[in-house]
Amino acid sequence: MATKKYVYPVRNKKVSAGKRISKGVYFFGGGKADGNESMKNLLGGKGANLAEMAGHKDLRLPVPPGFTITTEVCAYFYQNKKVYPKVLKAEVENALKKVEALMARGFGDAANPLLVSVRSGARKSMPGMMETVLNVGLTEKTIPGLIKQSNGNSRFVYDAYRRLITMYSDVVMEKAAGIEPKDEESGIRKQLEKIMSQMKKEKNYKGDTDLTADDLKKLCALYKAKIKEALKKDFPDDPDEQLWGGIGAVFSSWNGKRAVSYRRIEGIPDEWGTAVNVQAMVFGNMGNDSATGVAFTRNPGNGEDEFYGEYLINAQGEDVVAGIRTPAPINEYSKSEHNKDLVTLEKTMPKIYQELYQYQARLEKHYHDMQDIEFTIEKGRLFMLQCRVGKRNGPAAVRMALEMLKEKLIKKEAVITRVTPAQLDELLHPVIDPKAEVAHKPIAKGLPAGPGGASGQIAFSAREAVEQASQGKKVILVREETNPEDVEGMRAAQAILTARGGMTSHAALVARGWGKCCIVGCGALHIDYAKKELHIDGKVLKEGDWITLNGAKGNVYEGQLRMMDASEENKMLMDFLKVCDSIKRLGIHTNADTPEDARRARGFGAEGIGLFRTEHMFYGKGSEEPLFRLRKMIISKTEAERRKALDELFPYVKKDIKGTLEAMDGLPVVIRLLDPPLHEFVPRDPAKLEQLAKDLNITQEELASRAENLHESNPMMGHRGVRLGVTYPEVSEMQIRAILESAAELLKDSKSPYPEIMIPVVCDVKELSDQLAIAKRVYAEVLAKYNLKKIKHMFGTMIEIPRAALVAGRLAEVAEFFSYGTNDMTQMGFGFSRDDIGGFLPEYIKKGILADDPFQTIDQEGIGELIKIGIERGRRTRKNLEVGICGEHGGEPRSVEFCHRLKLDYVSCSPFRVPIAKLAAAQAVLKERKK
Amino acid sequence: MATKKYVYPVRNKKVSAGKRISKGVYFFGGGKADGNESMKNLLGGKGANLAEMAGHKDLRLPVPPGFTITTEVCAYFYQNKKVYPKVLKAEVENALKKVEALMARGFGDAANPLLVSVRSGARKSMPGMMETVLNVGLTEKTIPGLIKQSNGNSRFVYDAYRRLITMYSDVVMEKAAGIEPKDEESGIRKQLEKIMSQMKKEKNYKGDTDLTADDLKKLCALYKAKIKEALKKDFPDDPDEQLWGGIGAVFSSWNGKRAVSYRRIEGIPDEWGTAVNVQAMVFGNMGNDSATGVAFTRNPGNGEDEFYGEYLINAQGEDVVAGIRTPAPINEYSKSEHNKDLVTLEKTMPKIYQELYQYQARLEKHYHDMQDIEFTIEKGRLFMLQCRVGKRNGPAAVRMALEMLKEKLIKKEAVITRVTPAQLDELLHPVIDPKAEVAHKPIAKGLPAGPGGASGQIAFSAREAVEQASQGKKVILVREETNPEDVEGMRAAQAILTARGGMTSHAALVARGWGKCCIVGCGALHIDYAKKELHIDGKVLKEGDWITLNGAKGNVYEGQLRMMDASEENKMLMDFLKVCDSIKRLGIHTNADTPEDARRARGFGAEGIGLFRTEHMFYGKGSEEPLFRLRKMIISKTEAERRKALDELFPYVKKDIKGTLEAMDGLPVVIRLLDPPLHEFVPRDPAKLEQLAKDLNITQEELASRAENLHESNPMMGHRGVRLGVTYPEVSEMQIRAILESAAELLKDSKSPYPEIMIPVVCDVKELSDQLAIAKRVYAEVLAKYNLKKIKHMFGTMIEIPRAALVAGRLAEVAEFFSYGTNDMTQMGFGFSRDDIGGFLPEYIKKGILADDPFQTIDQEGIGELIKIGIERGRRTRKNLEVGICGEHGGEPRSVEFCHRLKLDYVSCSPFRVPIAKLAAAQAVLKERKK
Repeated sequence: MATKKYVYPVRNKKVSAGKRISKGVYFFGGGKADGNESMKNLLGGKGANLAEMAGHKDLRLPVPPGFTITTEVCAYFYQNKKVYPKVLKAEVENALKKVEALMARGFGDAANPLLVSVRSGARKSMPGMMETVLNVGLTEKTIPGLIKQSNGNSRFVYDAYRRLITMYSDVVMEKAAGIEPKDEESGIRKQLEKIMSQMKKEKNYKGDTDLTADDLKKLCALYKAKIKEALKKDFPDDPDEQLWGGIGAVFSSWNGKRAVSYRRIEGIPDEWGTAVNVQAMVFGNMGNDSATGVAFTRNPGNGEDEFYGEYLINAQGEDVVAGIRTPAPINEYSKSEHNKDLVTLEKTMPKIYQELYQYQARLEKHYHDMQDIEFTIEKGRLFMLQCRVGKRNGPAAVRMALEMLKEKLIKKEAVITRVTPAQLDELLHPVIDPKAEVAHKPIAKGLPAGPGGASGQIAFSAREAVEQASQGKKVILVREETNPEDVEGMRAAQAILTARGGMTSHAALVARGWGKCCIVGCGALHIDYAKKELHIDGKVLKEGDWITLNGAKGNVYEGQLRMMDASEENKMLMDFLKVCDSIKRLGIHTNADTPEDARRARGFGAEGIGLFRTEHMFYGKGSEEPLFRLRKMIISKTEAERRKALDELFPYVKKDIKGTLEAMDGLPVVIRLLDPPLHEFVPRDPAKLEQLAKDLNITQEELASRAENLHESNPMMGHRGVRLGVTYPEVSEMQIRAILESAAELLKDSKSPYPEIMIPVVCDVKELSDQLAIAKRVYAEVLAKYNLKKIKHMFGTMIEIPRAALVAGRLAEVAEFFSYGTNDMTQMGFGFSRDDIGGFLPEYIKKGILADDPFQTIDQEGIGELIKIGIERGRRTRKNLEVGICGEHGGEPRSVEFCHRLKLDYVSCSPFRVPIAKLAAAQAVLKERKK
Repeated sequence: MATKKYVYPVRNKKVSAGKRISKGVYFFGGGKADGNESMKNLLGGKGANLAEMAGHKDLRLPVPPGFTITTEVCAYFYQNKKVYPKVLKAEVENALKKVEALMARGFGDAANPLLVSVRSGARKSMPGMMETVLNVGLTEKTIPGLIKQSNGNSRFVYDAYRRLITMYSDVVMEKAAGIEPKDEESGIRKQLEKIMSQMKKEKNYKGDTDLTADDLKKLCALYKAKIKEALKKDFPDDPDEQLWGGIGAVFSSWNGKRAVSYRRIEGIPDEWGTAVNVQAMVFGNMGNDSATGVAFTRNPGNGEDEFYGEYLINAQGEDVVAGIRTPAPINEYSKSEHNKDLVTLEKTMPKIYQELYQYQARLEKHYHDMQDIEFTIEKGRLFMLQCRVGKRNGPAAVRMALEMLKEKLIKKEAVITRVTPAQLDELLHPVIDPKAEVAHKPIAKGLPAGPGGASGQIAFSAREAVEQASQGKKVILVREETNPEDVEGMRAAQAILTARGGMTSHAALVARGWGKCCIVGCGALHIDYAKKELHIDGKVLKEGDWITLNGAKGNVYEGQLRMMDASEENKMLMDFLKVCDSIKRLGIHTNADTPEDARRARGFGAEGIGLFRTEHMFYGKGSEEPLFRLRKMIISKTEAERRKALDELFPYVKKDIKGTLEAMDGLPVVIRLLDPPLHEFVPRDPAKLEQLAKDLNITQEELASRAENLHESNPMMGHRGVRLGVTYPEVSEMQIRAILESAAELLKDSKSPYPEIMIPVVCDVKELSDQLAIAKRVYAEVLAKYNLKKIKHMFGTMIEIPRAALVAGRLAEVAEFFSYGTNDMTQMGFGFSRDDIGGFLPEYIKKGILADDPFQTIDQEGIGELIKIGIERGRRTRKNLEVGICGEHGGEPRSVEFCHRLKLDYVSCSPFRVPIAKLAAAQAVLKERKK
């Protein structure tokens, strides 16, 4: 791409030559701010919130002063070979002067030095994915000044200097030198850490805290020598060089490996870019009157309206996030099994706690949402470092939304937008069967950092987790602590278990965002990575051993405990779905093949059955007897043989249909006639073949030959669905009779059955007429048999063959309803056999030829077009045509939204997807209103 | 259907109550006629032509007077439980009076009786499919009068009476009695014939002519007694009863089994109905000054502009058609091997011949087309009984059309409409290889009644022919003579051979209509139906034995002679195609996979290659070596292995491509990259597997496992086409290189190659971009290698996946041309796997759910809609987009017309279909002009 054309980019969009960024730096602090919360795209989430916190008249919180370099500058930086706009330098200097004034310190001032942090801040939070440099401005020259500031705490200062050197050499210098370490071990950071370990070993120290000021001073010298040796460059002793190095490192980290990989997963566009926040350093580690902490205005784990957080006395923020020390609870409410013995902030610093409490209340009221807050106490003075909408798990999201609605903090529309389909899905996640759980004793306990329960086989590395999962295994990733390099392994795993870290550690943050089962800070764990062993109280578990986690309680169990699906009697869920129902237009039906499924789906609020598959009763448990009779029918050669087998089959088919109609009493039940190719049901087991031959009174050779005749080259496009109904009308007849007799008997029983007879695999209206003739005849016979005048029912067609969509105008002459079978339509529309896409689809996704797997989400451009054409033509013929979809896409949010836009009457999905579909349907309404 | 509403139907359409037929009977004769030729729908073809012949000022031929009862009456008859409109009786009486006046005879008049014939006449000729009654009006009372008329020839009269009794009892009485004979043997006709045989046997007579007047008189009495006994009814002695019985029998025969079956084959609608023609009888059998004959204004067998016909002295028309006596030639030209010793009409009755000759000339000039004429000479007076457009075989049709164009009798548009695609196809029919033919001596000779040559196994009955043919055998139906009951067997057979009958016998007429190889009147044959043996000069052939016919010469050979395809150097064909070319708009390209095919197609006038399949070189002869290398490529596991195999494959692929580009020099050649799923090429033979494993240096287990990995559930929708190109870019690269290097080398050789690179199985534009990137890179490399600036070529896509048609607008951003693969599109659009439709498609056609096999003719409603959408969207993006089709539909006339209407640039079909496609394309232009 030629970059010369672009002088200056605006709002991350490439613009024509000559256009200029009006302002690259936004100041905040001292009760004022250039920016505000609405400027997230420009300032990033963190920058905008800092400006809002610092400057908004309702807030004016004690934010350490600082400034934000905009995302526009980031875009410019990438479009101009990593060169900044010329004006930037002056803007930064200017802003820095204001910070100096407010902090009454000078950047590089030997006597009273100002230190700053340099942090990233994208439009959407990408926790831990980009670089940060702290303590910038600390040099040989300013060290004495900082010692003075800290009341002579030279240990703190050299520790800060050590941290700066470590961070800066790793984040800025090593990368600037273009060195790409082969592995973590050979990186500069590890090399420096080794020096420290060496010193501790020599001095026989147990921990870092044993290191004295002198030790640290010596260490800093050793570090600098090592850096010079390894990176062929001096560690910079100039504050400005440090500052610009930090800024450059943050911008560069936007395109770092981890950040890019995270953006792929989260779907964040590459062109957004990050802002850089430069802010006065305040220190939580200036002694025991200092502290740092993270808090939430409500509990992010369960949504309770309680101030919730953790803090560490005499620590810097990175210590909390890194999970190296177990933080203390800020108040009684925040206590857990794990930290109940630690002293709360409320107790140690009651005044500060009160101040913090008021700030958090102000913040939530201002933002109308739960906030995630970072704060630091420097020598008894509270600073608010950061505030943003707090991540929460699904149950918490639902609870908060509903309670805020009750509190009139938000409107019902906001309830809908506050919960993502994925979060709602968490409420439906499997949990450990309580009965199984009481019978087992946990082998360890940790912090409940992610919802639901999970069983899996232990993997000790992200790579191993990915590999095992790709083989279809269920894996639990077990780590001392996790870091951004582990993200893909965490994603592949069923659940994550860490030995260290708190509720705000990397593992907890990431797992919560994904709604994945997670336990952190499980101190009883001792992992031997080399031996691939996990030691818990003398017990040894190996890679591949099964464990089970209860992410809601933080319990770890040995072995594989029985799981159960989330209860449909969850009141909160039901309340939430009521809000969805009050907004959504689209009907949400369910796919159910048994009376049990039907009842469960009705419990979830399904408004009908969109797909009852008659063939389903031949699969799975209890199917032996009917399956055998079906096989007899299939292998029959004459109509007489077939009719006999069908007569035997009839009671089984009728029983399930009747039970389902009864369970859905008053609601429509779409019953699809036999769909798959018959050979699917032919037994392969020789014993069963023998029995079948015997029962049919034919030789095994004859049986084999009949079965062979059923073989097809491309069964997906073979003799199936209505094609069976046309060639063997008696098969359709039996099924239709079972449907209508079931309805008749329920009517006699004062019930209100409403069957819809659906013909599958239709490609021409004449197939429908052919089957309708059978249905009409059977209908008349059933009315006569039960002495009834009418049985409410409909006759309709599945639309899954591409041609069916094209001739939908004709089909609607006979069909009273359409139901799109989007799975088959995707297969035939793309010419993708679902069984065979393994050979190329992964490559297609990887190469970006297809953005999504079209079997996961409806391909709106192609298959969607067919659906559109079909609806349009169908409704032109029959104005009140009922149209739904019954493919697996029916419960996928993007597909649901698409169906809403197409003005379908309903989508139908599996029972557990019904709530998701309801939410997606309600969100679709809101999206539509926005336009 | 309630019929009471309908009082009178009009023009065969059901009309509202009260509407009346204005006129049910149309008179003709004496130089006048109520009707004319334009009234075929009302009067039937025969009636309209009789009216035209009798009444048109340019003709006024001596037609025996009579009248036509309209097809409207037939419709009324069927809509009103076989009751006639009330006015009909009076109209018939009225018309009959005019006939009596013109013939100076009275119907039922004892002294001077008028006899009439009662014949069917539908809009379209259905030879022999409906009933006829002759000699109506002959009763005990009128016999003496007819004897007087015939100058005392009582033998003739009783013979006529015998014929009337036989025909009437069979056609009218047996059917009216509702008797359905189990077989021909038990019918009344056979019973009567047995009486005659009995008498001949008793009297030791050799033939019918030995029967005396007394014999015949006695026979008539015996016949009547038998009828009374068998049918419980007297033979009617009342002329009116005979007349109305005859009329009713003709109308009823419209729905007879034979007629219905013929209509199915010929596609004649049931609701057309037939007219009834009642016409004064004239007798060709009133002595040796009487005769009857059939003639054509040009030779229907080869199209020569010569008056051609046959006649029989002292015979009735039915004798000619039945083929019982071998007729004599009307002139020298009409002489053949078979009848050369018989005396011509020109010699026996020179004046009458001259009169006939002038009439036929007048007729052809009037109708601008070859006429089929029936005439009778009664005691030296010529009557013209019938005239209609004569059926002709394909070569004759082409020749006549071209010669009439030269004579300025017709315009070039008429040349195109006079020849059907099926007739043109006859010119391309296989013929016996002349070299094989000279090496064999015919075992018998007959009349050359149908075109081309054919080999097949003998079948002696229609049923046997149908059965054997349904098993895929090639059958030749061998019969004494054929009759309408044999139609289905004749259709099933490759060819027809009869022992009796002339060029106008049933077998000859039917075979000519179908363009089927046929020899008639092969007197040397003696068939023993019981023993299923054929005796020729002492040689005995049995059912199932092979014979070969030369339908153009009338030669019968023993065994299976080598066939060859019709020569492309046929000048007449070339002239005809020139006329087509001067009218058609659509380009006609060909599907060819080898230089030989390309040359042949170019000979037929192909204007380019629409489909060259790279994979084709791996099938068939000479493919061993390249196939082995392809297999190596397929079974390769690493890119390195694959590249090595591809390098080995490269020269083979290039050789065929280069040869083909050279053969089509200057014309476009669309080359499709590898299309089928790879496992199609994996060997099944253990020896080959072993060799392959050895060559690849892998174990047989490894080979088996790799092959197993390629297996797919629905290969048609699996890993094939561009999906291979995306996952194995090196495979595309090799093919594209072969194409461009071939073109480069030809360019260096001062040739004008024009390859079009076609990507198959595309469903998204990004697949095309992916492949285009490869093509661009290879193009640059080839230009450099050959030091060229440009190689003329195009890059385009096949449209065969339904989604491709829907996203055609995007595809056209990259593709410079589209080629519809209508076979695959039909498969996926219908969800019909071509390999598996056997289970239901026959039933679909039978039940009328589908009117046609969509693999034979494009389904215009559904698949056609997809094509339309694709063209529209594609051309919206790229105005000059080249669009063609390359499925097998490209040579099917209805599909060609459809493609013309859609404004495609070209269709591509197999070389032998090129002429058909050209004709169909020209006809499409004319059809369009009509609108």
